[in-house]
Amino acid sequence: MKHLADTIVALSTPQGEGAIGVVRLSGPEAIAICDDVFFGKKLVNQPTHTAHFGTIKNEQGHIIDEVLVTLFKNPKSYTGEDVCEISCHGSSYIIQQVLQLLVRKGARTAQPGEFTLRAFLNGKMDLSQAEAVADLIASESASSHAIAMKQMRGGITNEISKLRQELIDFAALIELELDFGEEDVEFADRDKLKQLILKIHSYIKNLMSSFDLGNAIKEGINTVIAGRPNAGKSTLLNAMLNEERAIVSEIAGTTRDTIEETLNINGVTFRLIDTAGIRDASDKIEAIGVEKALEKIKQSTLLVYVFDRTDMNSDHVWNDIKKLVHDGLNIILVGNKTDAYFELSDYERTELSQGQRGQDRNVDWEYIETKYPIIHIAAKNHDNVKALKDALYHAVLDGKLNLDSTIVSNVRHYDALQGAYASLQQALDNLSMGISGDFVAMDIRHALQYLGEITGEISTDDLLDSIFSRFCIGK
Amino acid sequence: MKHLADTIVALSTPQGEGAIGVVRLSGPEAIAICDDVFFGKKLVNQPTHTAHFGTIKNEQGHIIDEVLVTLFKNPKSYTGEDVCEISCHGSSYIIQQVLQLLVRKGARTAQPGEFTLRAFLNGKMDLSQAEAVADLIASESASSHAIAMKQMRGGITNEISKLRQELIDFAALIELELDFGEEDVEFADRDKLKQLILKIHSYIKNLMSSFDLGNAIKEGINTVIAGRPNAGKSTLLNAMLNEERAIVSEIAGTTRDTIEETLNINGVTFRLIDTAGIRDASDKIEAIGVEKALEKIKQSTLLVYVFDRTDMNSDHVWNDIKKLVHDGLNIILVGNKTDAYFELSDYERTELSQGQRGQDRNVDWEYIETKYPIIHIAAKNHDNVKALKDALYHAVLDGKLNLDSTIVSNVRHYDALQGAYASLQQALDNLSMGISGDFVAMDIRHALQYLGEITGEISTDDLLDSIFSRFCIGK
Repeated sequence: MKHLADTIVALSTPQGEGAIGVVRLSGPEAIAICDDVFFGKKLVNQPTHTAHFGTIKNEQGHIIDEVLVTLFKNPKSYTGEDVCEISCHGSSYIIQQVLQLLVRKGARTAQPGEFTLRAFLNGKMDLSQAEAVADLIASESASSHAIAMKQMRGGITNEISKLRQELIDFAALIELELDFGEEDVEFADRDKLKQLILKIHSYIKNLMSSFDLGNAIKEGINTVIAGRPNAGKSTLLNAMLNEERAIVSEIAGTTRDTIEETLNINGVTFRLIDTAGIRDASDKIEAIGVEKALEKIKQSTLLVYVFDRTDMNSDHVWNDIKKLVHDGLNIILVGNKTDAYFELSDYERTELSQGQRGQDRNVDWEYIETKYPIIHIAAKNHDNVKALKDALYHAVLDGKLNLDSTIVSNVRHYDALQGAYASLQQALDNLSMGISGDFVAMDIRHALQYLGEITGEISTDDLLDSIFSRFCIGK
Repeated sequence: MKHLADTIVALSTPQGEGAIGVVRLSGPEAIAICDDVFFGKKLVNQPTHTAHFGTIKNEQGHIIDEVLVTLFKNPKSYTGEDVCEISCHGSSYIIQQVLQLLVRKGARTAQPGEFTLRAFLNGKMDLSQAEAVADLIASESASSHAIAMKQMRGGITNEISKLRQELIDFAALIELELDFGEEDVEFADRDKLKQLILKIHSYIKNLMSSFDLGNAIKEGINTVIAGRPNAGKSTLLNAMLNEERAIVSEIAGTTRDTIEETLNINGVTFRLIDTAGIRDASDKIEAIGVEKALEKIKQSTLLVYVFDRTDMNSDHVWNDIKKLVHDGLNIILVGNKTDAYFELSDYERTELSQGQRGQDRNVDWEYIETKYPIIHIAAKNHDNVKALKDALYHAVLDGKLNLDSTIVSNVRHYDALQGAYASLQQALDNLSMGISGDFVAMDIRHALQYLGEITGEISTDDLLDSIFSRFCIGK
C-alpha cells in the first residue's frame, strides 16, 4: 500500500525563468527539514498559515536565496500533512540548489501527482475530486473549467455516495437473510429494493448520457471542415480563427495537437480538423492519407461542409455528405461566396438555381435544406461568420449543456458507471425472476464495488498509479 | 515622477502549465480589490503574513478557483505596499480569468520589474540591490549567483554609501568656504581631503579592476576553442560537454546563444565559441566569416588551442597563436591524441620530436612551453579532460576570484565608477596645483553624483525605465 512515512519535495510552479518559483515540501519531517536550512524564525514554533521571511543556507553556510516560507500544519494543509511552501526567486539555478539541498537533508523528490495522492490518502478529497484537480489544471475553456470545478467541489461524489449508502443499507438486510439461509426469511422488502435499484439505475443512466458531451467538452469538440477546392475553406477557417486569435494567444503555454486549430465558441473548445486529404476522396479512395482523414471524421462530432454558392455543379455536396455521414455526426452546410452570388444578374441566378435543383441532377436541395441547417456566408468579408459560430455551438450543445447539473467527463468514471449499470440490471432481472437472495446480493455488491471505484472508497495501488502518473510534478 | 497611486497585478510565476501559479497584487487597493473577489475570511481584518483558503468568484458568482491568499501589509512586504499573493491552480485558463477579473475590479497590469521598482521607490532596497534581483533570477552558475546575492544583500551599496558620506562631509566644508569666497579661508583641511580622495580613488580602482572578471562571470567566460582540422577539436568539445550534460540539463529553461555551448567548471560558466571559420584563416583572411570569428576572439578571455601530438607539421601552432593573441587573452595549449603518441615507437617519437623542434622549423617548443601551459590529453578516451577543465578555470580565475569580496559585474556601475574615478583624479590634480576651492568642489560634486547613481540616491525616470524594463513581468 502507498506509504506516507517520508517527506516529499518538488517545484510546484512551471519550469523556467520567472519572478518567483515555489518549492513545496510535505510530510512528517517537512517542518524539521525546512528549519534545518531556513534562517529566520524557527518554523516549528510558528502557527499554521503564516508566512516568514528568511534565508536558505547550504551546508557551507552560503546563502542560496532570500525566501518566504509559508507554513501549513497537519491536518490544515492541501495534503493533510505538515507542508512548507518555499517561495524563492525564479532562477532555475536557485531552485535546483534548493531542491538538491532539501533532498540531501532527507526529503524525497515527489512523483507526479504525489501531493494530491497524499491528499486523497489522508481523506482531504476523494478520488474523483483528485482527478478533477488535474482536469482543472488542463482546462482551457470556460465549459471544461466549469465541469472540472464542479467535480473538484464534490459534484459527482455527493450524489453517488448518497445512492451508494442507500444501496449498502439494503444490501446489509439481504446479507442478513443469507445468514438465515435455511429459514427462507426476507428482511429486505423486495418491492422497496426494486424501487431503489430502479431509481439508482435511472440516475446512472442519466449520468452516462452526459458523458459524450462532457468528454467532448473536456477534450474539445472534434469538428471537421470539409469542402471542395475553391469552396473557400481556408478563408472560412481564417475568418473564424481571426476573431479568436486574441483570446487564444492570451492563454499562453497550452499545448495543442499540431494538425489542429483550436477555436473557442461561447466558452467551449472546438478542435478544427484539417481535411486537405478528403477533397479528392472520390478520386483516390485507396490512398492511406484519405483513409486516415476519413477515420478522423468517424471520431468527430461535427462536420462543417463548405460549398460555393455560385458553383453550378453543386451536386457533389450531397455525394460528399453521403460518404462522410455517420451516427452522431452533426452536419452544418455552409454556402460561401454569398457576396459573389448577390452580384449575379437575376437571369444568372435563375439559371444557377435551375442547374442546382434541376431534375437531371441527383441533388434535391429542398430535401437537404430540411435535413441540415444551411448558413450563407461571405468568408472573405467575414459576413455572417458569427452566425456560423453560433450554429456550430447550437448544433452540438443546444439545450444539452447545463453546467449546473453533474456532467461525467472522465472515461474511468464512465466505465465504472457502465459496470454498475449492468450489475443493477442483472439484479433487477434476478429480482423479477424471483431468483434467490444470494445472487441479488452479489449483483448489488458488484454495483457497490463499481460505484466505490469512482469516489475511491475502493481503490488499488495500480489504479492510483495510473491516475496520478498523469498529473504534473509538484501537484 | 513614477507614481505609486494605483494597484498593480501580474502573474509572478513562469507561464505554462504547473501545479500552481501565483498572481501578485500590490498597491493601496490590493486588499480591497482582493476582498471584492475572494470568498473566505475578510482579508482586511486579517494580520499581515497570514495565508487564507477560499474561492475566487467572478461577477456572475461563478467559482473561478479555490485559492490560497497570502497577505502582506504595508510596509512589511516586498514592495513596501499592501500585497496579496493569490496561489491558484496552475491552469493558464484560470490564471487569465483571475488576472482579467482583478483588472476589471480596478488593478492595472504591471510593467516588467514594476514590483521591484516600487520596492526601490518605497526605500525597501537601493538601485544596485534592485538590479541584483534581476541578475539573481538570471544566474545560472554558482559564481554568478554568489555575486548577485552579495550585491542584493547590499555588498556594493554599504561600502559606497560610507565613502560617499565621508566625501559629502568634506564637500560641505568646501562649499562653506565658497560662501566666504572673498575671505580666502580654508575650513577643509587640504591634506586630509587629499588623503580621503586618495583612499576613495584607490578603492574605486579596486572595484573597477574586479569588473572584467565580474562581468565575465555574470555573462559567462568567452572561450574560443581553435585548432586545425583533425586536431580533435570536436572530440574534445564533446568530451568536455559530456561530463557536464547532466548538470546542464538539470537547469532547464535557461536561454542560451545558439552558436555557443555552455560549460560549467567549478561553478563558473564558460561559453565555448565555435571557430569553424578560423582554421582556414591563413587561406581566406578576407572572408567575412573569418573576420567575424576573429572579432569574437578579440572579445574573448580564453583561447584553447588544440593540436595533434603526432602531427609532424606542428609549426602552425605558433603561427596560429601569433595571429590570435591579444591583450588580456589567456592561452592554453592542448596536445591531443596522447594515446596515439604513446603507441609510436621510440624511433618515431624521436623523429617527431626532432621534426617538431628542428632548427629548420620556426617553432621553438621550449619557448612556447615556458610561455603557455600545455595540457596533454586523449579526448577520445576522455583522458585528462578533467585536468584541462581545471586548467581553464585556473587560467582565468586562479587567485582572482574571491566571492567574499565585492565584485562589480554591472556595466552601469562600472561606467559610474569610471566617472567618479575621473572626477576624483581631476580633484587631486586641482588640489596639487593649488587651484581654488570652487573647482575642487565641482569635481567632488561630480564624483558624488556618479557614486549616487550606483545606489540610486540620484536617479532619473529614464534611468529607472531602462533598468526595470529588463526585468521579467511579475517581479
